[in-house]
Formats: sequence, C-alpha cells, structure tokens
Amino acid sequence: MSRTAFFVSDSTGLTAERLGNSLLSQFKTLDFQKQTVAYIDTEAKAQRLVDRINRAAERDGAAPIIIDTVIDAEIRAIIKSSQGFTIDVFEEFLKSLQHELGSDPSNQVGHASITTQDTQYSSRIAAVHYALDADDGAKLNNYENADLILIGVSRSGKTPSCLYLGLQYGIYAANYPITEDDLDSGQLPQVLRKQRRKLFALTIDPERLSSIRQERRANSRYASLIQCEDELRQAEMLFDRYKIPVINTTHFSVEEIAAKILTETQLERRI
Amino acid sequence: MSRTAFFVSDSTGLTAERLGNSLLSQFKTLDFQKQTVAYIDTEAKAQRLVDRINRAAERDGAAPIIIDTVIDAEIRAIIKSSQGFTIDVFEEFLKSLQHELGSDPSNQVGHASITTQDTQYSSRIAAVHYALDADDGAKLNNYENADLILIGVSRSGKTPSCLYLGLQYGIYAANYPITEDDLDSGQLPQVLRKQRRKLFALTIDPERLSSIRQERRANSRYASLIQCEDELRQAEMLFDRYKIPVINTTHFSVEEIAAKILTETQLERRI
Repeated sequence: MSRTAFFVSDSTGLTAERLGNSLLSQFKTLDFQKQTVAYIDTEAKAQRLVDRINRAAERDGAAPIIIDTVIDAEIRAIIKSSQGFTIDVFEEFLKSLQHELGSDPSNQVGHASITTQDTQYSSRIAAVHYALDADDGAKLNNYENADLILIGVSRSGKTPSCLYLGLQYGIYAANYPITEDDLDSGQLPQVLRKQRRKLFALTIDPERLSSIRQERRANSRYASLIQCEDELRQAEMLFDRYKIPVINTTHFSVEEIAAKILTETQLERRI
Repeated sequence: MSRTAFFVSDSTGLTAERLGNSLLSQFKTLDFQKQTVAYIDTEAKAQRLVDRINRAAERDGAAPIIIDTVIDAEIRAIIKSSQGFTIDVFEEFLKSLQHELGSDPSNQVGHASITTQDTQYSSRIAAVHYALDADDGAKLNNYENADLILIGVSRSGKTPSCLYLGLQYGIYAANYPITEDDLDSGQLPQVLRKQRRKLFALTIDPERLSSIRQERRANSRYASLIQCEDELRQAEMLFDRYKIPVINTTHFSVEEIAAKILTETQLERRI
C-alpha cells in the first residue's frame, strides 16, 4: 500500500521536506508518495490543499501524513481540518520553547531579518562566484583567497561540492583537478604545496567513477575502468604522501560531503 | 543575555539547523549563539558534546537550547544528560507516527537507500554541470534540454539560482543575461522566443543591484545607480511585453527564489 505524505510550509518547504524525509525514512517497509507544498500562506491556499489531501485520502484509503511547518495558527487550523494525520511541528515545539525561554513567540512567518538576509545573500553570491572563477584549476593565483581547495581526479565530485559549500555555508572553495602529469611526477604542483593546509582530497570507487565518466565520454580511455583504477590508486598515494585528508564520495550526497568536510576541517562558516 | 543553541545531528545537521533556525526565529527579542554540530554518531562524540554544552551552560548562566535529530536512542540519552534544554525531534514525532502507521521505526541513521542516493547524485551532478555549461548565455543551442531558462540583467541573481535549482531539485536551468542590445531593440533574441514557455525572469531593486555591481566593478558606469535603474526599467518592460513571469529577488534568499520558481512553474523535480 502506498500512502501519500505532504510536506507543508508557508515558505520554501525545505524544513518540512528535510524533517519529513528523515522521519519517514525510519519506516523502511512502507511506501510513501511524497509531495512538498511550499508557500501555503493564505487561508484560500490552505483550503485548496485540504481538498487535495482529502482526495489523496480517498484514493489511498488511508490518512495522508502531513508534516506541517506553517507558523500562522489559523492556516494550521484549516490544514488540521483535513482527513490527514498531521504532525504540527510548530505547535509541538514552540510551546515547550516558550516555557523554557520565558518569552512569547512572534508567530510570524519565520525568516531572519532582511538585513541578515542581505548580508547572507551577498556572502553566498560572492562564494558561488568565487567557486565558479576558481573551478577546474582556473586562476591558480587566486588560492590566497580560498578557504579550502578541493583536489581529486576528474569527476570525483569537486565542482558540485565547491558550489554547495559556497551556497550553503558561504565558504570560498576552489578546486584543482589532479592531472596525469601530477600523477606521473608523484608531486603536487608548487602552487598547491604552498597552500597545503587548505587542501582536502576527494576520492571515489573506480566502478562509480567509470560510470560517471561514461556519461560524459562513452567508451573512451578516459572512462575505462582500468584508467579510473590507475588514476585513483596513484592519486590516493599522492594524498597519502602529503598527508592530505580524504573523503570517499561514492556513497555520499553533496550535502553529506560538504558537511563532512566542514566537520573535519573545523572551517568557519561565513553564513 | 545571549543563550547558546546547539543543532545536533548524527548526519549533516541540515535538518536540525533548518528546524532550529525556524523555531528560534520566532523569539525575536532573544539573542542566540547558534552552533551546528554534525556527525555525532558515537557515544564518545556525544560525551564530548555534553562537556561542550555544560561549559556553555556555565558561561551563559542559562540552559543551552538543544535541537536534537539524532536517531540512536543511546546517543540521545547521553545528550539529554547534559545541562541543556533538549528538544528531541525523533522521540516526539516517531512515537506518534509509529502509532498512526502501525509499523516500527528502524532507528537507523536516516538516509535514503544507497541506490536512491546514487541516482540522485548523478541527477544532481548532471544538473549542476548543465547549469555551468549553459551559464551566462553560453551554448545557446542547448536550450532544448533546459527545464527552465532564467533571464535578467547582469547580477540579478541568475547564476546562483540556476545552480541551486540543480543542486537541490535536479532541475536543468540555463540562464541568459539580457544585454543592452536586447534592451535597445526591445526584443528577446529569436532563440529565446522559441522557448518562451521555459522563460522565467528575475528582477531586483536598482539600489541593491548597484551595490552588488559595485563589488564587482567599483565606480563604473555598469555599477552606477542611473544605469541600473535604466536597465531594470527596460528589462521589466520587456518581461511584461512577452508576459514572462517575474520574481523580484531583492529580499529573498537563493532557496526562496528557487522554491518560488518551482511553485509558480509547477516544474517537476528530478530529485
């Protein structure tokens, strides 16, 4: 039986979606049809959502699960009138926080003040443009400004990780693709050796790398398993020689890679 | 009085951080020192965290707020032994879900199966590389493959939005910077007119745009307020003429811009 789950928010839906996915992933034997519903910020939209929830309830023959992070109490009351089973995140936790903090919640749609947002937005834009400018070994002289330099063979996950570190944490992350010349010489280029404390390495299982490279250049030497095995083995020896911390990205999402790097390096976030 | 808040997780910390930020943003009169603590996945790490929480409690003279999304019950018990005030997300909600779903939670660190992750990872990588390839009007012929084409004047927020749409939702988002030639002619280029249903426009307040451009080229004509006002006025007329949906990005974060575009276009996510 498949059951519908709605992740409902008056804003982006990212909190509801993350929390809902975490909670539902604990019920591995069940099958959920998940829908994120963002910007439910008027009573009319809430009413239309109730209709949608009720239709799902009839179709499934079971109450849909609603993970609700809407702040406004009247909108929440409308959503609760549906046939869904509602987990009302704010009601539950705001009450206990209110008690502990001895202060009343404002019950306003929750985001930081505009000034904070503006600063954060500029920091992110700057960090993303930094990552783009310093992508793929470009502008080698700009490593002075990097918070972090990711190194690894082609398609080991450097670029998405750099961009995510910029978008999510405002970190200035450059990346340098290890070339066959580097591997042959067994040495890192001088410009990187000068920045050794900023280096962090990504590696990946050869089978996975080969399949990612296949999508880029099918049936090429570049994508062959033997080439991938060779490059990775030599690259890992290089990381080892210079004692550069390494993450194997094979089974991790971009978020996980970024968070692990942050945890290991103890780098300070800009946002 | 400043009070410390810890967002604690056995994984990336993003769920705890989002939820914690949403909850605490409701208490606008209070000042919080927020710390995200990721990968608390052993009892030893939990014990070290307890020491950290207790030190903060002494320093602040008040119980730190702990937003805890750790799955493992024994690790959670250690965290609860601290002097913090703990909001235990999983304990609270898993119990009620368990009852409603008639199924036991697995209590394993919560992420989707590796197969799902691999597919998602590939989709994201592909979407990010698409955004990079189709950035800044490059590869105009590749718009056939775009899910979405963001248009707007230089530095209106197109690139970070495209990258975020790729990373978060796997959406293939291209972007095209409106040029002065486009503005003078009052027409969109032919290649865009063919893709009109994929177009979405970004605009921004002139003061904000000017300050963003100042960071890039200080004291240039490009960054002057009068130039920004001119370009934006003409661009908005252009969007209006072609009936292209528009978002003003001035007061929104990248997440909000992306979620709003998704909600308005009803585009289907790939992840």
